[in-house]
Amino acid sequence: MPFHSLADVHALLGRLPAPDQAALAGAETRNGQLTKPPGALGRLEKLAIWMAGWQGTDKPRAATPQIVIFAGNHGVTAKGVSAFPAEVTAQMVANFAHGGAAINQLARAFGAKLDVHALDLDRPTADFTESPAMSEAEVVAALRKGYEAVDPQADLFVAGEMGIGNTTAAAAIATALYGGVGWAGRGTGVDDAGLRRKDAAVAAGIERHKALLSDPLQILRCLGGREIAAMTGAILGARMARVPVILDGFITTAAAAVLEKAAPGALDHCIAGHQSAEGAHARLLEKLGKEPLLALGLRLGEGSGAALAIGVVQGAVACHSGMATFAEAGVAAG
Amino acid sequence: MPFHSLADVHALLGRLPAPDQAALAGAETRNGQLTKPPGALGRLEKLAIWMAGWQGTDKPRAATPQIVIFAGNHGVTAKGVSAFPAEVTAQMVANFAHGGAAINQLARAFGAKLDVHALDLDRPTADFTESPAMSEAEVVAALRKGYEAVDPQADLFVAGEMGIGNTTAAAAIATALYGGVGWAGRGTGVDDAGLRRKDAAVAAGIERHKALLSDPLQILRCLGGREIAAMTGAILGARMARVPVILDGFITTAAAAVLEKAAPGALDHCIAGHQSAEGAHARLLEKLGKEPLLALGLRLGEGSGAALAIGVVQGAVACHSGMATFAEAGVAAG
Repeated sequence: MPFHSLADVHALLGRLPAPDQAALAGAETRNGQLTKPPGALGRLEKLAIWMAGWQGTDKPRAATPQIVIFAGNHGVTAKGVSAFPAEVTAQMVANFAHGGAAINQLARAFGAKLDVHALDLDRPTADFTESPAMSEAEVVAALRKGYEAVDPQADLFVAGEMGIGNTTAAAAIATALYGGVGWAGRGTGVDDAGLRRKDAAVAAGIERHKALLSDPLQILRCLGGREIAAMTGAILGARMARVPVILDGFITTAAAAVLEKAAPGALDHCIAGHQSAEGAHARLLEKLGKEPLLALGLRLGEGSGAALAIGVVQGAVACHSGMATFAEAGVAAG
Repeated sequence: MPFHSLADVHALLGRLPAPDQAALAGAETRNGQLTKPPGALGRLEKLAIWMAGWQGTDKPRAATPQIVIFAGNHGVTAKGVSAFPAEVTAQMVANFAHGGAAINQLARAFGAKLDVHALDLDRPTADFTESPAMSEAEVVAALRKGYEAVDPQADLFVAGEMGIGNTTAAAAIATALYGGVGWAGRGTGVDDAGLRRKDAAVAAGIERHKALLSDPLQILRCLGGREIAAMTGAILGARMARVPVILDGFITTAAAAVLEKAAPGALDHCIAGHQSAEGAHARLLEKLGKEPLLALGLRLGEGSGAALAIGVVQGAVACHSGMATFAEAGVAAG
């Protein structure tokens, strides 16, 4: 077992692996020799070199991506924060199992393995406006579930989520991590009154747990949810296994931000797959210094935006690892 | 033969097919029934519906894309407008044939068929600063080559190009179509002096042929190149076959813009795959009212940016055509 307590998680965050410097240098050199004008593949070049560093090879691959969806239910739905009833979490998990959701189609389109973990759906987290969402044992169990869900043989990893109410939890986490107001958004489509209820729930949660919020892992425990903690654990697990990660939307990014706040640099193995239409996502990515690959107005969750970005990463590594050099092709190098 | 003269091409532009209205309506309805909050897939939803209209089905596909690269040489290279020698056009065609270029890797990554047509590389077009780049017979032959290169069975089409000197030709076309200055950019990487030579060549070309430039097809003849005219013909051919098209960068978009200027709406079957780092591409897309799917700083040509966007379109149609409806999945519709 990698950890048994939040203290263990903090300890793990003190010994994160770095990318392979020799592979980074090798990939930089190779990139300069490929049959194209310097820099003509734009961000694809940086992407491929980044992949090379984490995979420890100058010819990275993205042939066996893994997508893991975590699902959880949230006590804060009692405060009327979602346009959908809580039952939809379990209904969508069944939809994932039957292959009918967007993420099933995207996983198939890009050749990714898709795993789904439903976390105690019949036992929602506590309403964080009234008590901590989870006990330490509960948050550690969720973190571990995520950590252990990562296939170390995957060459790319996406964590996604399903959980009615979880944009409110993510907004509370972002507020606790970065301060300010206005982190709540429309989620699956609440009206103005619903948005006011989300803002009020976030404010109440921050007020109730303020004594604990200097520790990012306590923020996760008090304000998060099982699927959010599982994503945090999965992103940490991917780092330990040096598997590069594509971040999805607002909720996934909030789960990831907990790690970065606890240990700056903890998300160096992550790129932002897309910028969600959920208002505060752009603001959260800015806090993390991550520029999204795509900005197509998605706001579905399920890992869908990150899954779509798998195609971009596959294109990047295909070019880098498959192209001929000027010498191999007999092309004048300009 | 679809046409034997530029007059024939103008006539063809007067009878362009429209998208299938029943398929558009069917796809709109289906989109509203899929297991996701309304609009949660953002631009992917519009993309899938657009594909449905051109393919004439409410469940569009992007399983058999075709990429065609046209290569040509340009007399205007005599004016020192490129960072690379003209020989590189033929060298890169050989690289395409051997599978070593970026476009080969991208075609393979997204399952596209790749065809390459080298157009009289040993017979460059005339230097357009001194005489028309092509005779009418030459431009019609190039248009026809492109028109006939389109596989009507393809479910998505990309035209790409290779031609040392062709950003200068494209800048001249854009200047003639839309007026203004500053349409020339760095291309494969010219220095400040090279950029001044490109601007001067464009100005000289516009001045020399000004009597003819009210006709977009004459602009193509006087200032274009064989690979550019072939792309124009291919995009027209795709329209006649109702095959949807992803536009690539500055040069491809200039080739397409000729059609739009001659017959507004002629590019309704085209989307902008990406925004190139070549400075004037964004400006050209704005003239056409096309919002790019990707903006990743590519400026390679070869159809590479459009090829990368095939992945996005494949994701869009996979979701639209593969997802379960609320009724099928037993999910509450909110």
